[in-house]
Amino acid sequence: MMDGETYEGGSVAHHIIDIIEKKKLGGSLSEAEVRDAVTGYTSEKIPDYQMSALLMAIFIKGMSYEETLSLTKTMAESGDSYSFPDSVDKHSTGGVGDKVSLTALPIAAACGAPVAKLSGRGLGITGGTIDKLEAIPGFSVDLSEERFKKQVETVGMAITEAGSLAPADKAIYALRDTTGTVDSLPLIGSSIVSKKAATGAGHLLYDVKRGSGAFMKTPEEARELADLLVRLSEDLGVRASAFITGMDAPLGRAIGNALEVRESVAFLKDEDTPGDLAHMARRVAVRLLELKGVSEPDEAVERAISSGAAYEKLEEFVAAQGGEADKLPDLEVSSETHEIKAPRSGFVSRFDALGLGRAALALGAGREKKGDPLDFGAGVEVFARVGDAVEAGQRVALLFGSRNIERAKKLAEESLEVSGEPTDAPPAILDSL
Amino acid sequence: MMDGETYEGGSVAHHIIDIIEKKKLGGSLSEAEVRDAVTGYTSEKIPDYQMSALLMAIFIKGMSYEETLSLTKTMAESGDSYSFPDSVDKHSTGGVGDKVSLTALPIAAACGAPVAKLSGRGLGITGGTIDKLEAIPGFSVDLSEERFKKQVETVGMAITEAGSLAPADKAIYALRDTTGTVDSLPLIGSSIVSKKAATGAGHLLYDVKRGSGAFMKTPEEARELADLLVRLSEDLGVRASAFITGMDAPLGRAIGNALEVRESVAFLKDEDTPGDLAHMARRVAVRLLELKGVSEPDEAVERAISSGAAYEKLEEFVAAQGGEADKLPDLEVSSETHEIKAPRSGFVSRFDALGLGRAALALGAGREKKGDPLDFGAGVEVFARVGDAVEAGQRVALLFGSRNIERAKKLAEESLEVSGEPTDAPPAILDSL
Repeated sequence: MMDGETYEGGSVAHHIIDIIEKKKLGGSLSEAEVRDAVTGYTSEKIPDYQMSALLMAIFIKGMSYEETLSLTKTMAESGDSYSFPDSVDKHSTGGVGDKVSLTALPIAAACGAPVAKLSGRGLGITGGTIDKLEAIPGFSVDLSEERFKKQVETVGMAITEAGSLAPADKAIYALRDTTGTVDSLPLIGSSIVSKKAATGAGHLLYDVKRGSGAFMKTPEEARELADLLVRLSEDLGVRASAFITGMDAPLGRAIGNALEVRESVAFLKDEDTPGDLAHMARRVAVRLLELKGVSEPDEAVERAISSGAAYEKLEEFVAAQGGEADKLPDLEVSSETHEIKAPRSGFVSRFDALGLGRAALALGAGREKKGDPLDFGAGVEVFARVGDAVEAGQRVALLFGSRNIERAKKLAEESLEVSGEPTDAPPAILDSL
Repeated sequence: MMDGETYEGGSVAHHIIDIIEKKKLGGSLSEAEVRDAVTGYTSEKIPDYQMSALLMAIFIKGMSYEETLSLTKTMAESGDSYSFPDSVDKHSTGGVGDKVSLTALPIAAACGAPVAKLSGRGLGITGGTIDKLEAIPGFSVDLSEERFKKQVETVGMAITEAGSLAPADKAIYALRDTTGTVDSLPLIGSSIVSKKAATGAGHLLYDVKRGSGAFMKTPEEARELADLLVRLSEDLGVRASAFITGMDAPLGRAIGNALEVRESVAFLKDEDTPGDLAHMARRVAVRLLELKGVSEPDEAVERAISSGAAYEKLEEFVAAQGGEADKLPDLEVSSETHEIKAPRSGFVSRFDALGLGRAALALGAGREKKGDPLDFGAGVEVFARVGDAVEAGQRVALLFGSRNIERAKKLAEESLEVSGEPTDAPPAILDSL
């Protein structure tokens, strides 16, 4: 045939290689091609190394909306799925001190909007509602499908660990995490919405965080992701809406599992709560009720808080899942604490979410890698917010925990900037759609 | 820490992920980064799926010349290496009926330029000199390093199967072949030159094929690859030069292992030979002698052919490797033949290399996949060339072999185009540098 030192082998063309070749040149994959790639991968007919090449091609060349929708559908249908057409749910893209689920959802449930939520554990500076709930003694995050469904009906609120939903997304996400293909809009959007679609709540609010402590750094990125999440959800039959919320500073005062439960409890008991958290929890609850078509949602939300109904719903939900509800207001936190003080007098111009999140992570509130044990009592409380006037030496934060103290201190101290000029506090909700 | 349904995990940054991230954004990798990726991969510290993501990022974002040189060096140094500073070698990027090694190298050797060649087996429509040589009864392609070196000294010509040279290239190539990352200029160039540098010949001519039966389809691609091969080689201390040669039609008359040996023998015996092959073999031999600094190379080449010295060198080389040199002129070919006839009278405007290569492949002259057994006597002989006048029903090709006859016939027939207008035959050598 041909000369000996030939270079390339014309191997028999395989379907997946054709798909990779098409995408690497910037072509659009058909729904069938997307399905073949995903189901081939989850059924182990397509090896990791071909899928990662395809993911990199998708990362660089992008995906049209139609391709992204195909990917979302295919992943949503890859495992079990539930159907809770009357329920509401919310999804946050992850922020430091983000306890909106713990606050807004009991309110919505108390107002008659059933909450059926499947959630995950945290990794890195992002954390999981599941972890926060496990800070409550006795609380079980592992409900059978039957028990989960029944609790949604009887209590009106249930949260369980996401199990066999969207396994294709789980497999693909694990691969993306190790191949530099995480931060791709179509891959992020399809990952989020596939899980939510499989969970089956009929009404969904996305909370897209934007800022130093969030995945999306710019307003454009956040807006683009919010648009995509809503559009994909609606095309999969879910009533959806989105907020874009600020994450340059932590939400509220507490970062860390038990600390965040305590702060949530205080808010639901209508006790003193930082304004950003109080505002956000209310706005999210109202929007969820609007999605459901509840009339006068603002009034309903205020009533649920002031009457104690929202807090009672939280207690009822916690008790239903085996948690010691009476311990909620005083969950144990670490007895070892370290003060962070303002280095000079002036106005707080920055108290950075990313740095404070890393400090809490170092203290044991989060996992650096999968399977790391948490210290539920570890974390950070911040007492100064952007715009606040502080005196030199004034306590601005309190670290809880006994791991990596020096690193945590340094991270927290570097997160703070005190300026001579007053600064306005940024709004909690930046945009909505 | 953060809200539950968070999306992304901030996994511990790994070095290879940093390298992937850099390349996916179009950055330039340092020599150390290239080395870490390649040696990490060959030592199995970096899994296939990370390497394939990196290769796809390289495919799409490209590599600077410096990165490509780093990659070439690293792969060249990844296994054994030889050193034959006085030797000449040539490398073809692969074409149908390409028997330039079998013809030009004995001439060069007869003129005193030692040939030390490590070659490979063919796959797909590309084939290997090793396979062609194995069509000679008794010929051994598996020489020990010692025997190989000795034969270069005593006979002035030895060809053995490439073994443990550039194992990094071998591993990466296998991955590229299944991940749609073959046709990337820096990856092709570094793959070719790393093997040649490890082989260690001091003078090297690249034959970059261009056309339907070649890897490079356009003049620009072929020129770019030729430039890259020469530049990389020179930077690795090899005197190098390149031809860009046409591959829209097969070179010479024969396609298939024994058939190609017979045609090469006929040329070296100064018997009737198609003009393109005769011209190319001479030009390649002359250029190899020029690289060596031999004076009056044209005259030397003509003398070697007309005196029979070149053919004697081929016989000596074949005998040294155990082959039955007396059988060379009449190697057995398949007794089963099928004629392909011109469908109409006119002028041959196309007799397509790719289609004829596929026909020969179907007949058993090549391997559709690794390890397929060859039929050494199978192949195609073409009797009409572009520009030739043909009569309807005139024999234009003869198929040899008993496998997949109908498919081979169809492929050969579809390769032929007869036009009413005369066409000029294209030159064999299109460009040189």
